[in-house]
Amino acid sequence: MIRLNWQKGLQFIAEDDYGHKIVVDTSRDMGGLDQGFRPMDLLLVALAGCMGMDIVAILTKKGGKIDKFTIEIEGKKAEEHPHKYENITIKFNCEGDYQRKDLLRSFELSRDKYCSVSATLKTCPKINYII
Amino acid sequence: MIRLNWQKGLQFIAEDDYGHKIVVDTSRDMGGLDQGFRPMDLLLVALAGCMGMDIVAILTKKGGKIDKFTIEIEGKKAEEHPHKYENITIKFNCEGDYQRKDLLRSFELSRDKYCSVSATLKTCPKINYII
Repeated sequence: MIRLNWQKGLQFIAEDDYGHKIVVDTSRDMGGLDQGFRPMDLLLVALAGCMGMDIVAILTKKGGKIDKFTIEIEGKKAEEHPHKYENITIKFNCEGDYQRKDLLRSFELSRDKYCSVSATLKTCPKINYII
Repeated sequence: MIRLNWQKGLQFIAEDDYGHKIVVDTSRDMGGLDQGFRPMDLLLVALAGCMGMDIVAILTKKGGKIDKFTIEIEGKKAEEHPHKYENITIKFNCEGDYQRKDLLRSFELSRDKYCSVSATLKTCPKINYII
C-alpha cells in the first residue's frame, strides 16, 4: 500500500511499504511549492522505469553489456480538461557491447509481455473509491 | 520531458524539467538495489497525488479548512504476466473544518472532470516507441 500525506499548498509526501519517500508537488502558479515531481510526470516515470528495467534485465541475460542507458519520455496532453495524455513518446538510447537484435527483442518482450505499467495503461484498471 | 538514467542493477534516476530527481528501483530478489520507488507503485502515487491535489484545491476554494489529509492507495495485480493492475482502491481521509458535501463534490469533480492521471488511465493513451 502507498500512503500520501498532505503537507501544505498542494504538496504531498508519498511513502511506500519499504520506507522510501518522495515529494509530489506542482507549480507555484497552480498552488504548489514546486518541490517535487508532478503527478502526470510520475506516470511517465512509472512507464519508462518499468520498460527500462525489463530491457536492462533481459538484454543482460542475453549476454549484453550495457555502458549507458538513457530513456526520454514525453506526453502530449489534450488541450481541454482533464488534459489527459493522448500520446506518449518514449525513446531508448542504449550504449554498450550487445547485439542490436537482442536490444530489439528485449524491448518487444517488455512492450508485449512483461511491462506491468504498459499493460495497465492498455487495459484501464477498475478504480474503487472510499471517501 | 522526463529523462531516466540507468545507474546499476535495475536502478534508474529520473529527472524532470525542473531539476527534481527521484530514484526508481526494485527489490533485490528482482535484481534491484531497493533504494527507491518501484514503477508500479509510482503509478499509484501519480493517481493518488493528482486526485489529492484536486480535492485540496477545490475544497479549499469552497471555504473548507483542512488540518490533515491522507490517502491510501493499493492495486491488485493479475497473477499472470504482465501482472497488470486489475483493480485499484483509493481511500481518502480528510480531517478539518469543512462541509461533508463539499468534500464529496471536490472528489467527484476530480474523478469526473479534472484529474488528468485518472482520465489517462480510463482512455488508454497511444504509446510511440523510438529505439
